[in-house]
Formats: sequence, C-alpha cells, structure tokens
Amino acid sequence: MSSGSWQDVVRQKRDTRTRLIEPFLGHSDGATDASILGIDNVAELTRLYEDGKLRARDVLEAYIKRLAIGAGTCQTPADTVSQTNCLTEVFFEETLREADKLDDYFQQHGKLIGPLHGVPITLKDQFDVKGADSTIGYVSRAFQPASEDAAIVRILKDLGAVVLAKTNLPQSIMWCETENPLWGLTVNPRDPSFTPGGSTGGEAALLALQGSMIGWGTDIGGSIRIPSHINGLWGLKPTSSRLPYQGVPVSTEGQEHVPSSVGPLARSLSSLVTIMQTVIQSKPWVLDPKVVPIPWRQDMYEEIQSRPMRIGILVDDGVVKVHPPIERVLKELEAKLKSAGHEVVSWDCSGHRECIEIMDLFYTADGGEDIRREVQAGGEPFIPHVEALVNRGQAISVYEYWQLNKRKLAAQKAYNDKWNSTKSPATGEPLDVILMPTMPHVAVPHRTCRWVGYTKVWNFLDYTALSFPAGQVQAEVDTVLEDQYEPRNDHDAWNWKLYDPKTMDGHPVGLQIVGRRFEEEKVLGAAAVIENYIKA
Amino acid sequence: MSSGSWQDVVRQKRDTRTRLIEPFLGHSDGATDASILGIDNVAELTRLYEDGKLRARDVLEAYIKRLAIGAGTCQTPADTVSQTNCLTEVFFEETLREADKLDDYFQQHGKLIGPLHGVPITLKDQFDVKGADSTIGYVSRAFQPASEDAAIVRILKDLGAVVLAKTNLPQSIMWCETENPLWGLTVNPRDPSFTPGGSTGGEAALLALQGSMIGWGTDIGGSIRIPSHINGLWGLKPTSSRLPYQGVPVSTEGQEHVPSSVGPLARSLSSLVTIMQTVIQSKPWVLDPKVVPIPWRQDMYEEIQSRPMRIGILVDDGVVKVHPPIERVLKELEAKLKSAGHEVVSWDCSGHRECIEIMDLFYTADGGEDIRREVQAGGEPFIPHVEALVNRGQAISVYEYWQLNKRKLAAQKAYNDKWNSTKSPATGEPLDVILMPTMPHVAVPHRTCRWVGYTKVWNFLDYTALSFPAGQVQAEVDTVLEDQYEPRNDHDAWNWKLYDPKTMDGHPVGLQIVGRRFEEEKVLGAAAVIENYIKA
Repeated sequence: MSSGSWQDVVRQKRDTRTRLIEPFLGHSDGATDASILGIDNVAELTRLYEDGKLRARDVLEAYIKRLAIGAGTCQTPADTVSQTNCLTEVFFEETLREADKLDDYFQQHGKLIGPLHGVPITLKDQFDVKGADSTIGYVSRAFQPASEDAAIVRILKDLGAVVLAKTNLPQSIMWCETENPLWGLTVNPRDPSFTPGGSTGGEAALLALQGSMIGWGTDIGGSIRIPSHINGLWGLKPTSSRLPYQGVPVSTEGQEHVPSSVGPLARSLSSLVTIMQTVIQSKPWVLDPKVVPIPWRQDMYEEIQSRPMRIGILVDDGVVKVHPPIERVLKELEAKLKSAGHEVVSWDCSGHRECIEIMDLFYTADGGEDIRREVQAGGEPFIPHVEALVNRGQAISVYEYWQLNKRKLAAQKAYNDKWNSTKSPATGEPLDVILMPTMPHVAVPHRTCRWVGYTKVWNFLDYTALSFPAGQVQAEVDTVLEDQYEPRNDHDAWNWKLYDPKTMDGHPVGLQIVGRRFEEEKVLGAAAVIENYIKA
Repeated sequence: MSSGSWQDVVRQKRDTRTRLIEPFLGHSDGATDASILGIDNVAELTRLYEDGKLRARDVLEAYIKRLAIGAGTCQTPADTVSQTNCLTEVFFEETLREADKLDDYFQQHGKLIGPLHGVPITLKDQFDVKGADSTIGYVSRAFQPASEDAAIVRILKDLGAVVLAKTNLPQSIMWCETENPLWGLTVNPRDPSFTPGGSTGGEAALLALQGSMIGWGTDIGGSIRIPSHINGLWGLKPTSSRLPYQGVPVSTEGQEHVPSSVGPLARSLSSLVTIMQTVIQSKPWVLDPKVVPIPWRQDMYEEIQSRPMRIGILVDDGVVKVHPPIERVLKELEAKLKSAGHEVVSWDCSGHRECIEIMDLFYTADGGEDIRREVQAGGEPFIPHVEALVNRGQAISVYEYWQLNKRKLAAQKAYNDKWNSTKSPATGEPLDVILMPTMPHVAVPHRTCRWVGYTKVWNFLDYTALSFPAGQVQAEVDTVLEDQYEPRNDHDAWNWKLYDPKTMDGHPVGLQIVGRRFEEEKVLGAAAVIENYIKA
C-alpha cells in the first residue's frame, strides 16, 4: 500500500498507466490495422492464424496501437481509447511476449496452441491477474497485486488467449455507470457527455472501439447487459455457477443469495458462442468447485434452431415504461418473428416487483458496512449514488437475513411456477425464451441512469439473459408527443424526461433474450435465430 | 393450532397416530408377508409386479401390517415398529386406496404406471405431504397441515411410489440422535437402550425393520449417513442441489451457506441406484429451480466400474480416533481392494479441522434465535443438547456473516486444490473417491453421540458421500487393551470411553465413499464395485 493521501495513490496509479502506455504510442499502419481490428469474431481470427495468414504479433500489435493511441476507423466523437478513459491496468509488454511465444509455437508445431490461440481479451478491473491490482474501483485496493490469476483468466490463457488490459468500473461496482475517484469517469465512445453504462462500462467502451475481441465482466443487476445494450454489443449473463468466479473480488463479497455472474461481452454472437463453448469444454468445475459440471450441450444449442420457437414478449415491466425507440425495435422484431412462423405470446410482469423488492433488501442487508469500510479505508470521497446506497437501509440481523432468504426462495418458486404454467397455445408446451427490453432508455447523460428493473430481476432468479444489438434510435421515426404520457411514479417520470430523440439519434438499442436457469445454450441458439431478423 | 398446553398437543398428536394405526392391527400372514418384506430392492419388486406375480395391494398390506404390529422375521430385541417409536404421521388408508388404483391400472393397461409402481416409501417428518403436518420435531408445528406435496414427494408419487408414513427426527433436526418432546425417543431396533442415530433416525429404524423400501431423509452434518451406518443401511447424501428441497421445511431455514441435502436410504445399493436414476430422469429441475439440470449420467456410473479405481483411504480425521472394529473393517476392505488391483493411496485429514471450525460458526450465526423461537413457540422443554447448541454462540452481524462466507469459499478452494494436486502414483490422475469411516463408533447408548466430524466435513464442501454397511463388530476380534491409548482431547477421550465390544457385538459398521461435487453416479458406481468385496 502506498503512503500518502488518496490523491497521491490516484496520481501514482494513473502515472503508472501512462508510463506503461507511452512506449507504444506511435502511428497506426492505417489500412492493415483496420482490417485486423475489423475481424469481429474469434472463429474467423483463429482460422486466419491456422491458415498462416496472420501472426499473433501483427494482430496484438494492431490492438495495442488501438489501445495506446486509439486511431482507427471508428468515426465517433470519442474515437480514441484514451478519450473514453476506459483502461486501468495495461499489459502491453507481456502481450507482445505472449504473441511471440504463440508465433513460435505455431512455427514449430504447425498448429495452434489452443482454440483461443492469439485471441485478444480484456478484463473488467475485478479479475485477478497475477502481479496486477484488482482495484474494483477502490483506492484502498491499489498496490495490492494479486498472487495468482483468477480461474477464468487461467483457463483463457491455457486456451491460448492473450490479456491486453483491464478496464474501468464504478466505485462499489453496484451501479449502471462507470465512475470512481481512483480512475475517474469513463465516457461513451459515441458521445462523451453520455455514459457507456456500467458496471462493465470500461469493457463495453473498449469493445465498441474495436479495442478488444472478448471482454470479461460480471453482472449482479445488469452490469454486463446494460453496457452491452448501450454500446451495441452482445453480452451474456449466464446462471451464476456456470462460469468460475474464483479469483474475482467483488463488492459485498460473501453475499451469495443474489449471486453475481461472470460472463463475456463481444462484438459478435459468433464470438460469444465460441467463447462459451471453449471455456465450458475446458471443464472449469475442476478448477473452481462452485462451478456446476454441466458440459457444453451442442444438442440444446441446435435443437432450438431447428423448429419454430415459443417466445414470450414482455414490453413493459409495469414500473418504468420504455422509451419509444425501444418499444418500436421490440415490436418490429416481434412482427418479423411472427411472420417467420415463430410463436409469439405476451408475457406479463407479474412477480417482478416482488423479486426486486426482496433483492434490494439483500444489497443493503449489512447496512452498507462493506462498501463504507472500503471507501473509508481509501479515504476517497463517495460517488453520490454510492453514498445514497450505503445510507439506504439499516443492517438486519442474521436471523432476519435468513427470513429474507426464505422470501427469496418463495418468490423464485412462484416465478418458476408461472413459467411452467404458461403454455404455448399452439403446442401446449412451456415457452422457450422471453424477448424484452434491456433498459428503458438508450445511452443517457452521465449520472442520470436509475432504473435497472428490466435486467436485475434475472439476477434475482439467476436465469440466463443475453443482451444483443437489435436496432438504433431513429430521431425522425421515434418522436413522441408532449403531454401524451402520464408517468406512474417518480422513476417513470424521471425516465420519461430523459427521452431526447435528437441527442440519442443513432445510438444502439439492445434487447434481452431470457432463458431459465442454466439454459445458456438455448439462449445462444435462440439468439442465432433472432440474429437473422436484425441483420435484415 | 390446538389450544392448551404443549402436553395437550403431544397427547392429541400421539392419540391421532394410535387411532390411525388401530384399524390395521391384526395378525400377519407370516410366511407370505416375510417373503414380500424380504424383497430388498426396487427393481426386483417392480419386475414381480410387471410379471403379474404380485399385486400392489398385497405388498402394501404386508408393509402396513409390519408398521402396525411389527411382527415378522426380524429377530431383534425391539422387533416391532411401535417399540422403536419411529412413526409420526401414518397414511395407511390412503396407501391402500393408492394400491388399489395401481392394481386397477395394471389390470386395465397391462403395464406399470411408472418405474416406481407400488414401491413403498416413507419420509422423515420434514417432507410436506398435502394435508399432513411436517412438525420437524417441534410442538409449535403440530396441526399445521401442508398445503401441497414437497417437490420430491410429487415426483415419487408421479413415478408410482406409495407413501406409507412419516418418521421421527430430533428437536431442531441438528443432532445425530432422534428425540423430541412431541414424539419422544426413537430407539435402535437391535438394542432399545441404544440410539438409532439421527437425524433421519426414524427412517433408519423403520428400514432396518423392513418397514419401508426407500426412506427419504435430509443431511446437513451426517443425518442420512449416520443412521445408515448405525442400522446397516445404504444412505446417500448427494450434493445439495442435485435433488429438490422445495417443500421440505428445515431448522434454521434460509441458511444456505452450509446446505442441507435431500437423499435416499435403502436396504440395498440396487434400490439406491434405481431411485436416483428414476428421480433424476424425471427432470426435478423443472419443478424446483434450485435443482441443477444435470441428467443421469449412466456413462459415469459405468466407467468407474470398468477399470481399476484410484481410492484415497482416510482412517483417522486427526481429532477423534475410530473404535477398533471400524479401523479393522476399513483395513480389511482396503486390503481386498488392493489385492483386486485397485490403486489405494493414503489420504490425510489436512483441511478438515478448518472446515469444521467454519461450519460450526454458520450453525449458530443467528445466536440460536431460529431454534429458540421454535421451541418457545411450542412451550416444550429443550432437549439438553439443543439447549447447549442455541446457547453456544452470540449472533454475528450480516457483515461478519459475509466475511465468514468468504472464509468458507477459501477453505472450499483449498480442499479442491488438495484433491486436484493429489495424483495417483500409478497413472498421475487425481483420485476417484475417498473411502473412510462414517462415525468413530457404532451404535451407542442414547444421548452419548458427540463427534460427527467424519460426516459433516462433506456437507461443508457439498461433496457426494454414501454410507454403506461394510461389516459388523466382532467382540472376540475387536478387543482393545486398556491404558494403551492416550486420548488427544475431550472429544477423543469421550469417544474412547464409549467403546464396549460386548454390548456393541454384532452391530453394523458403515463406511463412507466420498466423491467430489455432483459425482453421485461415480460414487454409486464405486459402491457397486466395492459391494463385491463386502459380500465376500
């Protein structure tokens, strides 16, 4: 731990980052780099390696240049990585050493070292990398390097992937934007006055700038899906024990009743499928005993693609109505799926309010002690929303905590009963997936995000949920008449006032595909079908 | 809820039991009944049904007679069921109605209604059966009938099984004997002055008397395995989320960090395998979302039987040394396995003490409030060991509870690392299973059980563990020289003093087969191999 004030720590950490980036500043080899960074999926990249058409050194150098100087083809207002302030720890030297090793291996053996040979990945600043800090946005955690790699990092490296950097997240993690006093504010690549979302906001900004191929995040209320939605990415929140959490420090650690999930974000569905498949095939349960030993079920992934799907559509969660472009994009997709022969059934929001009420009590069951201690240990100021969170509720007793957990189990049972009893009119079978909004709004100005009810309910139920880029705001189409809508409550009024088709024009609209517990393959399979209708 | 004193409630509940049993008192049809009750495995029974050689009515009547009057072939001091005092709720009328329905079905359709057609089962008084109490040993829970069947009960009934009765368990459940003020003391069928073990003690006593074919229990520290060991039965504690716990009220409910498991007890391994296979094939995760969707893995069950196994042998947990017959039985089996070509490696007890220390803190994290409230609500006296438990520790805060849970995860990781790094010298592969004692003693006098460290560590780790009948005490062989052994601590001294080869002569000795998380098929497969050497 460094001595001095919290500002000293901040200065030292940021200076170190600058020092590690500086040697790599320089001009990009424009066209070549752009074509490399334009490869959006893992399978294509590894095929090029396999065919000897690319070397890991070239690919990782192109990525490093993107991370260091940000030049490239992304024509966005904040089109350099440094402008978004998304990086925390950088490993460029190690990256190049690894790249050379991979190239040597390929030259010697004539084959790839593993299914993720030379795939550039980045990590939310929460995944332990041996020798680097995992600050999780707290000053007090600076200069406390991890003694070993997180289980998922070890697995990815063993499969051949190369870690470029770690990325920013909010103080306490428990927020849907990305800001902390240690690393500062991360901004949206399409509009610096907008948030990239959070808590995996650094990853999402970087991926949107083609600065990574696979980003790794965590999600306890929407933290993978919200920034995916805001930045036009594919992001998967699996059921919590499908992928290993070991070696991933987290806020309110030890609280497991509303579990956080590890999951990937990517620029393509193909990459998500490949990464889930390869990681699960590596048997992560051997390394981390919390992971459930369910193999990759290719049959489940394919079966759903082989027949008409039974899809529940949830447009409104009954608390905060979504903005017009989100409703439009969802309804357009619904119509396409229907006309393609898929069965579409309306899904109501019963149960959601109860689930959210209970889970909010879990977040603050310790009276905010965990987060308060962390912030006070570092001495930095509270971000206002974090201060509000830690002051929201009194600590409850362990006995009351157990009673709360009983309420949770009852609510989970009720929702499961609802799913079992909602039968498709055509086949009499339960629905496959639910299609619904990820957020009630697209990208918004910093510090204005509030309602995450569309995502967090699936953490409470620990269901599989994927956010995918389904469309964009179209200012000319998505107009809204003033005074037409009567807000239902403060959250709803706040959200409705945020709507501004002009500033939001062109921003991505994400939607969620939701499956039941441990149905990752099914949700990815449904996404593969749905992808055809959003490309069209 | 009944009015009046707790003694009134006790009287009413016991009178009701008597009233429901009375109509079925009468003489047994000796030889026929004995041959029916002598069928020890499910597959054999259902084959006889299928071949039309038995009717469900005949079988269930034989069982009811056994439960009502206890006559039969079991030549034990307490050879009637009523003498063991193992029953709580009885469903004889319903049982016969169901039997008739099954016979009608078979007559009409010429086939069984399901894979458990007419299989007599019983339940620890913890599994909800619609219309009956689940007292879990508390007076306050009398006259509060369940509104629906527990998930596992519903599944078993759907598969064709018939529920005969529910059975006794200790006040608070958290004990390895079977006594509560509501239903009284359950005794060991082989010696009424001895305990049948607990907490699933009623089931085990009944099974030992051939009063059930499959008993259902729960296990949070050994509660299935300990009474199995003491009564010469096969009992499986699966990983906690393999079978459904929904609709099974429990003490300190809501505490999930040291999870309780639902599991079966049976008179044969064959029955255990059949019941696990059929229940898992019914997809219990659809009904109970806490169950993990791992199908029955026949390949895993068979693979371990097809090659030399790699077995770790743990003789001593370092805290309480086992009595001489237990060590002898274990070492005899070890020698047989070795000479049959299986690889046998010594397994040390490192990590066990730390696991047990942490788990004991979980049991009392609420300062005993949950159990204290339950007992006080009924007004009955505390059983002394329950009183000691609730007064053992102060309540901790939720923040401290989370820190405790972090310690738990670290200890679980350490044990997993130990397993991964202990390689077989012959193949370099990790071990398959551990073979070890279930308890440091066999059946002992009432209220003298103390140390359950051999079983509870596997609840903390949530590993799969099976107890099986491996031998008997042989007074003439299992002598021990006085003053030869220096006890290590109070627990060890207490246990050593309990040893009495004369009174224990002939009592069953159980051993455990332990596998990693979710390795139920592997453990059952290893048991199938090992069974050959205990029969010999």
